[in-house]
Amino acid sequence: MELFDKNILFLIDKELNRYLEGEGTIYKASRHLLLAGGKRIRPYLTILTYMLKRDDIEEVLPAALAVELIHNYTLIHDDIMDNDDRRRGIPTVHIVYGKPMAILAGDLLYAKAFVAVSDIRDPEKAHEVLKVLSKSCVDVCVGQAMDMEFEKREDITMEEYLEMISKKTGALLVTSVEIGAIMGECSSEEREALREYAKRIGLAFQIQDDILDLVGNKNKIGKPIGSDIREGKKTLIVIHALQHLPEDKKKRLLDILGKRDAEDEEIKEAIEILKDSIEFAKEMVKKYITESKEYLKIFDKKRRKKLEDIADFIMERVY
Amino acid sequence: MELFDKNILFLIDKELNRYLEGEGTIYKASRHLLLAGGKRIRPYLTILTYMLKRDDIEEVLPAALAVELIHNYTLIHDDIMDNDDRRRGIPTVHIVYGKPMAILAGDLLYAKAFVAVSDIRDPEKAHEVLKVLSKSCVDVCVGQAMDMEFEKREDITMEEYLEMISKKTGALLVTSVEIGAIMGECSSEEREALREYAKRIGLAFQIQDDILDLVGNKNKIGKPIGSDIREGKKTLIVIHALQHLPEDKKKRLLDILGKRDAEDEEIKEAIEILKDSIEFAKEMVKKYITESKEYLKIFDKKRRKKLEDIADFIMERVY
Repeated sequence: MELFDKNILFLIDKELNRYLEGEGTIYKASRHLLLAGGKRIRPYLTILTYMLKRDDIEEVLPAALAVELIHNYTLIHDDIMDNDDRRRGIPTVHIVYGKPMAILAGDLLYAKAFVAVSDIRDPEKAHEVLKVLSKSCVDVCVGQAMDMEFEKREDITMEEYLEMISKKTGALLVTSVEIGAIMGECSSEEREALREYAKRIGLAFQIQDDILDLVGNKNKIGKPIGSDIREGKKTLIVIHALQHLPEDKKKRLLDILGKRDAEDEEIKEAIEILKDSIEFAKEMVKKYITESKEYLKIFDKKRRKKLEDIADFIMERVY
Repeated sequence: MELFDKNILFLIDKELNRYLEGEGTIYKASRHLLLAGGKRIRPYLTILTYMLKRDDIEEVLPAALAVELIHNYTLIHDDIMDNDDRRRGIPTVHIVYGKPMAILAGDLLYAKAFVAVSDIRDPEKAHEVLKVLSKSCVDVCVGQAMDMEFEKREDITMEEYLEMISKKTGALLVTSVEIGAIMGECSSEEREALREYAKRIGLAFQIQDDILDLVGNKNKIGKPIGSDIREGKKTLIVIHALQHLPEDKKKRLLDILGKRDAEDEEIKEAIEILKDSIEFAKEMVKKYITESKEYLKIFDKKRRKKLEDIADFIMERVY
């Protein structure tokens, strides 16, 4: 059986299209990235979480779309801030439409996300969803700001790194399941368990990304191996290495880190130096995934199955 | 008596400060423009409208702040898109903090606006406010996109111009009073009357801005006379002139329009050519303001007084 349910994905895409119908360049620019694909993991999580308790997918759909719209607005704005040229295999929005229109396209998706929240039928549920989604938008901004400031610093601690990714990428994943829990009328203990589940798959997801950059298949991940090293990113793996390597290896790693024109041989050398830290990261992913599934145990075995599968997918994925 | 009630303005600023407490550059950047001033006309309208029917200011405050936060996010992003260096007498956010941080500061204000909506106590009111505010955010984006596209076109009609400003600047003003009406539990007729009032003061406000650029006091409006002419803006006055001037004067106007290094003598000449159109614009402002006050007549005479004063202020203001 497929990990992602095609019927649900079809429904998500159909409704996303409906929210972004409109004329003019601004609507075209807003659809550019959304229609280029993406795994839709966030709205999918919202729907699966909802289905732990309830089956009326139409009820949860606007809430699920809201998180996907927010996710896509952040991608468009992040690409402008980071000057990234490509995403999902196509040129980024600001490359095609220019920066002013890209800022505006992101702002429109932002607005449409809250239109989607307002389309939730039950006012009490809409109010609760609004609370968690708006707070999570604050976190995402603060996380992105931390990420931008970390680039200028050498001394990022593991705790700072984990705080940054828990805000920048974790917050919206946690919100995705929390919104599903609200819509599905979960108890406060169930909601808390789902938050813990999502926190861990969020961390595991990001760390797995960092691992794949070093040991993945470049055709599957869609970018050259070691891009993060050439960009000088302080990933969890690099932070761990800088704290544990002997002086000579640490010095050599710092030589290569951030060297945009590094030879493939140098990248290989850096990966060799990082070997133990990559193992450490793999262990962390395993630990987070195991723990995440523990938190699901309070739910019905059949209904929780797909959420467990998502956790396993995150660890096993190669792209 | 003062047009703006100092106690209400104090309350607005106190609460805005509270919403934007936080550490790091992103919070500093978010506060930069907000703390530099601004007339707070939108939250003030929300509160005055609410007070047509109810007196519990604390209840309406989060809703009022939401519109001011949205307004300020749009100013920050617009200044980036339009490459404007100064606003409210100080350098714009992207000049001080760089474009990436300015995009993010705007995004944070956007998020905080919806946090404010979620702080509305009554879920039904919060839900209604969310509906109108999120739709109005869509309009503001579409209006800004129209404005950007109009710059490249020569043949803007009066109707297109009015549609653009009704979205770009009118939508949020209409929303400000509509939110006050929701919070104050106005009937649907009262709400409709308030929408009509706000539409007209929004149009009058924008047209008065365009008039002041040509015949205002440069010290009071804070920029040189005729800036719009040097920038080649297609204001209502210019559109009217291009439709009514004899060929030779029209040609001369088009020569000067958009000439960044135009001499003061040329600006004077353009203003002389625009004389009849300026009169036409002044008549429109007068008409909109008179009509706007007509719509208030269904409300208690004493309670509507300040809303009438705001309408008069918009016509009489010289800055």
